Amino acid sequence: MNYYSDHFSKLIGELSKLPGIGAKTAARLAFHILEMPLEQAEELAGSILEAKKNIKYCRTCFTITDEEECPICRSPLRDHSTIMVVETTRDLAAYEKTGRYEGVYHVLQGAISPMQGIGPSDIRLKELVERLRGDVKEVIIATNSSLEGETTAMYISKLVKPAGIKVSRIASGVPVGGDLECIDEVTLLRALEGRTEI
Amino acid sequence: MNYYSDHFSKLIGELSKLPGIGAKTAARLAFHILEMPLEQAEELAGSILEAKKNIKYCRTCFTITDEEECPICRSPLRDHSTIMVVETTRDLAAYEKTGRYEGVYHVLQGAISPMQGIGPSDIRLKELVERLRGDVKEVIIATNSSLEGETTAMYISKLVKPAGIKVSRIASGVPVGGDLECIDEVTLLRALEGRTEI
Repeated sequence: MNYYSDHFSKLIGELSKLPGIGAKTAARLAFHILEMPLEQAEELAGSILEAKKNIKYCRTCFTITDEEECPICRSPLRDHSTIMVVETTRDLAAYEKTGRYEGVYHVLQGAISPMQGIGPSDIRLKELVERLRGDVKEVIIATNSSLEGETTAMYISKLVKPAGIKVSRIASGVPVGGDLECIDEVTLLRALEGRTEI
Repeated sequence: MNYYSDHFSKLIGELSKLPGIGAKTAARLAFHILEMPLEQAEELAGSILEAKKNIKYCRTCFTITDEEECPICRSPLRDHSTIMVVETTRDLAAYEKTGRYEGVYHVLQGAISPMQGIGPSDIRLKELVERLRGDVKEVIIATNSSLEGETTAMYISKLVKPAGIKVSRIASGVPVGGDLECIDEVTLLRALEGRTEI
């Protein structure tokens, strides 16, 4: 039954379509929106449409950007001979937050997933291969360590190696500060296999 | 630093102003919005503006509604001589969901809170008193059992009793299915005080 007004119920319905937002949270957000100044609600609604309509993908690395080419790809301070391959812009942002990676990126916009019907041609692999024609010394594969991420990593390594370019994969292991007893067996074995002499 | 595009960062910023939405959740929601079809994003943005612009409060009970008077106040099937006083439309919805209350409501749109500078004149108390001039037999006070809710309940009872109208307060006690050991002392004492013979 509809205990609220139609407009209000519609708002709750739309909000509850968002991931991780259930009916109760949606109602809470909707009441908050109702109580905010009109300008702020307009800002929120406007930002949704602006982001949706104006978003572009960098013509080189395919990250989200406002221009033709993203600031990282345009920067002369970055090492353009090292390409880190990530699945999404979120992963790029995660590495950028470390502030220590000086190379450039390639955002695949997904990972190979036969289960979901996503093949090599559905992600930005062709574009990666094209970039390899330039002066590239190393390709660092930083896809997730999920089944899809590992499959994609394997596929990319087979694609890149014949071109005589160094291919590396970010390390799998115990997170810094992680409690051994809380870590799953697969990660523990990976950490053991990847042990380094000290 | 801005790892995303300006439009995208703006969207994340606006989303993270919502209650309970932190920076990470905001980014997740923003990515979801980016991936949804344009029509759905327009629906979402539109529903925010529509709800904000078209919302009205019932001229009788002050709940959220699309019309001048809400369906409950207009219904000839409801008992208009029994008024349940609640703080918000959310509380009204909670009682409506039980499907067993047949009276009408009065939504105060808040509670008396000296700490937050909300006095009796800042909530819909004057309007409640005006409604008492009609044929009202009972006023059920269903404000929250917080300090503010109790203060408001006390205030209303003093306001209504002189008019010779029955005033009642919903029971405080152990929630159904509640584990005694998990319930706070104040609730336990309330439950003891309010015990009924069986």
